[in-house]
Amino acid sequence: MQSETVTYEADGLSMKGRLFRPRGGAGPHPGVLVFPEAPGLGEHPLSQAERLAGLGYMALACDLHGDGRVLGEMEKIMAALGALIQAPARIRARAGGALDALLAQPGVDAARIAAIGYCFGGTMALELACAGAPIAAAVGFHSGLAPVTIADAGAISGKVLVCLGADDPMITLEHRAAFEAGMRMAGVDWQMHLYGGVVHGFTNPKADAAGRPDILRYDARAAARAWKAMIGLFDETLATSAPRP
Amino acid sequence: MQSETVTYEADGLSMKGRLFRPRGGAGPHPGVLVFPEAPGLGEHPLSQAERLAGLGYMALACDLHGDGRVLGEMEKIMAALGALIQAPARIRARAGGALDALLAQPGVDAARIAAIGYCFGGTMALELACAGAPIAAAVGFHSGLAPVTIADAGAISGKVLVCLGADDPMITLEHRAAFEAGMRMAGVDWQMHLYGGVVHGFTNPKADAAGRPDILRYDARAAARAWKAMIGLFDETLATSAPRP
Repeated sequence: MQSETVTYEADGLSMKGRLFRPRGGAGPHPGVLVFPEAPGLGEHPLSQAERLAGLGYMALACDLHGDGRVLGEMEKIMAALGALIQAPARIRARAGGALDALLAQPGVDAARIAAIGYCFGGTMALELACAGAPIAAAVGFHSGLAPVTIADAGAISGKVLVCLGADDPMITLEHRAAFEAGMRMAGVDWQMHLYGGVVHGFTNPKADAAGRPDILRYDARAAARAWKAMIGLFDETLATSAPRP
Repeated sequence: MQSETVTYEADGLSMKGRLFRPRGGAGPHPGVLVFPEAPGLGEHPLSQAERLAGLGYMALACDLHGDGRVLGEMEKIMAALGALIQAPARIRARAGGALDALLAQPGVDAARIAAIGYCFGGTMALELACAGAPIAAAVGFHSGLAPVTIADAGAISGKVLVCLGADDPMITLEHRAAFEAGMRMAGVDWQMHLYGGVVHGFTNPKADAAGRPDILRYDARAAARAWKAMIGLFDETLATSAPRP
C-alpha cells in the first residue's frame, strides 16, 4: 500500500500524519480522516487507514500530540488528554488541521469526506462535526461522547454514528442518554449501535495488552459489526459526489 | 414468488400462515419466521417474507390472531394484545407453533432458523428466544422489549438484535435500560441499534396512514439500515449450517 508522511500545523503543533492513497486512478476519491486513541498515532489507526485505502478511500491517519508522538505512560496520556478536554477548541483545532491537510491532497473529493476515530479519536471526529466542518459523516468507535460539545450539535451538517460496547465502563448509560438528548434537540441524523458483553477498546487487537479485560478488551465480532456499520454509512454518504454548483 | 398457505395449531387456535420458498434447489435452506404487527398478518410482513425468500431464505409469514385474521379496530387490537401480554406463555405458544410449522417443511435447515418481527411481532420473536427455542437469531424491529420476559433471558441460545427508533414513544429509555440489564445479566450476544429522529413503525410504508406521525411514521432510511443490520446478523448466524452430530 502506497503511503506517505503528511505534515501540517494544528493547535500550534507540528503534526505528522500518514496518508494512504487508494490504488486506481487520479480520483477524485472520497476521503476519510482516522483519529487515533489517546496515546497517539500508533499501529491500530494506521492499520485501519490502510484498510480504508484498500477499499478506495483516501485515508489520512492523523496525529494527535504533535511530531507523531505516541505516549507510553498513562500519566503523560492523562495529562495531555486532561488539558484538551478542558479546551474543546484545541481538540477542534487539531482535528480541523487534519481536515485541511486532507483537503489539500490532490485527488481527494472535498464533497465526500468522513471522519472516524477510536476512543479519544472518536471525540475528535465528533468535535470536528460539532465545529460545523463540512464532513458528510462522523463515526466514533468506543468513542467519548463529549457531552460538553453537544450544545453545539446544531452545527453538525453530516450524519453521526457511534458504535459502543454496552458494558464499556467509560461510557455510561448517563453519557449515552445525554448524547442522545443533545442529538435529538439538534435534529441530527444519528445512530448508536450497542454491542452486548463488549467493553472499551473493542476494535483494537492490542487492547488486551493492558491486562484489564474488564475495561479494555478486543472483540473481533463487535469490531467486525462496527466496521460493517461504518461502511454502510459510507455507502450512504460517500458513494457518489454531490453535484457542485 | 411461489407461496402457499400453511395451517398449524397454536395456543388453541387454527393458524393460517404463508410460506415463501426460495428459488433454486431442494435446500436445505435457512428459515426465517416473520411475526406481524399487532393487527395480524397483513401486507407488510407478507412483503418482508417474500423479500427474504428472494434472498434465499425459506420464510414463513406467521399468523397472530388465528384464521389469518387482520384486526381493523383499535379496541379489538388492544383487547387481543392485552390478553396476550398478561400471559406470555400464550405468546410463546403462538410463536412456538409457527416454529414447528416451519420446521415441518421439507427443505428447511433446522440448524439455521431465525425469528424476526415488527412491533408486537418483535415481542413474539424475543419471547420465542426466551422460551429457549433453538433459533440462531431473533430480530425485533420497533419491537416491544417485553421486560416481563427478560427474567428468562438466560434461556436464549441465539443472538439478539433490536432496531429501534430513538424517538419511539412506545419504547422509552427506561424500557431500553431494563432490556439491556436483562440481556447483560443473562450474558446474551445482543445488539441494539438506535436511529435518531425515528418513531414507531418505521419499517412499514403504510405507517403514515394512521395520521399520527409523532407516534407512527415510515422512515425509508431507517428501514434500510435495519434491514441491512438484520442481513448482517443472518450472514453471521445462518450462512452455513453447523455440523450435525
